[in-house]
Amino acid sequence: MYRLYDYLPSGNGYKVRLTLKYLRLPYELVELDIKQGATRTAEFLAKNADGRIPLLEVPGRGYLAESHAIITFLAADSLLVPNDAWQQAQMWQWLCFEQYSLEPNIGTARFWLKSMRRTPEELGDKLVEKQGKGAAALAVLERGLADRAFLLGDQVSLADVALYAYTHVAPDAGLALEPYPAIGAWLRRFESEPWWEPITAR
Amino acid sequence: MYRLYDYLPSGNGYKVRLTLKYLRLPYELVELDIKQGATRTAEFLAKNADGRIPLLEVPGRGYLAESHAIITFLAADSLLVPNDAWQQAQMWQWLCFEQYSLEPNIGTARFWLKSMRRTPEELGDKLVEKQGKGAAALAVLERGLADRAFLLGDQVSLADVALYAYTHVAPDAGLALEPYPAIGAWLRRFESEPWWEPITAR
Repeated sequence: MYRLYDYLPSGNGYKVRLTLKYLRLPYELVELDIKQGATRTAEFLAKNADGRIPLLEVPGRGYLAESHAIITFLAADSLLVPNDAWQQAQMWQWLCFEQYSLEPNIGTARFWLKSMRRTPEELGDKLVEKQGKGAAALAVLERGLADRAFLLGDQVSLADVALYAYTHVAPDAGLALEPYPAIGAWLRRFESEPWWEPITAR
Repeated sequence: MYRLYDYLPSGNGYKVRLTLKYLRLPYELVELDIKQGATRTAEFLAKNADGRIPLLEVPGRGYLAESHAIITFLAADSLLVPNDAWQQAQMWQWLCFEQYSLEPNIGTARFWLKSMRRTPEELGDKLVEKQGKGAAALAVLERGLADRAFLLGDQVSLADVALYAYTHVAPDAGLALEPYPAIGAWLRRFESEPWWEPITAR
């Protein structure tokens, strides 16, 4: 059985949990409190030298880090990954965009405000910069969703799983979603998938 | 024929150029000066809403952004992408690590110092933070290379192409490579591949 090292408020971990739920794959959850340094112990660093969750332990194989490497490994043969090479490339374009332009801004601002309980006053310009870049990423996403139900077209895919994770919690980073009507409709569409569950569900 | 929108000093663009060279695929190069805002014009934003190079124009298909989406699309059927699902997952783990932990730190510090010609004194704590995180990423890479010739084992793969791009220019970001002997040996090994060429070669 798979074992997932994770921190429930993590959007990156949530991508993996949602994918496992979609695939109906049972797994053992090992919760680690990243605020307490639980992923920087010698024991954990021996499993993942990068010291981050989510980390998937695959029986007979070893450990796999990086949320997008994990979800594409798990879902490779499912309908969440398109067969067509060009569609698969579009999926990876969105996954890479998420980790480069969306998560480092929205995810980090949310972590400071919600998990570390810092205030906007304490954070100052650092928060303003993250929020500005986060809003720019939301504008790119809004444009990508203008003419379609899901990011790759009519069918839900891992691109939606990956982008949903931190987009739907943008208000936790101090970013309102009201200016983005296509994103709003897409969030509601994604949340009506029968396998959807809230971010900290177990 | 493929058309590549690129900026020659870019390590992300270099990954694509090296992959095209390995595959012996001809392409038209359209050079854009990112320092002059050439990727933020209305004309370019219509091609890539995210306003970044590299961008690949694929005849009959459209535009593909994100260096790792581009190189995996191009090289999917080559020996640069392993067939085995677990090896492929390891490849993606390294590609995701590069875009999350290595490039945003080493690439950004290098861009400030080399392309924008800012000084360490002007940059202050911002540069120190990027260099600290860049050094942490190099330490993870060093550990990953401790017992192998290339990142996935004996054979060169896209993981090496992707990680080489910004690692070999770490000194441009003010980060010495001498403390990392396994990285040093791997750089020399990669540079002895017959299809290797320097970052700004055309």
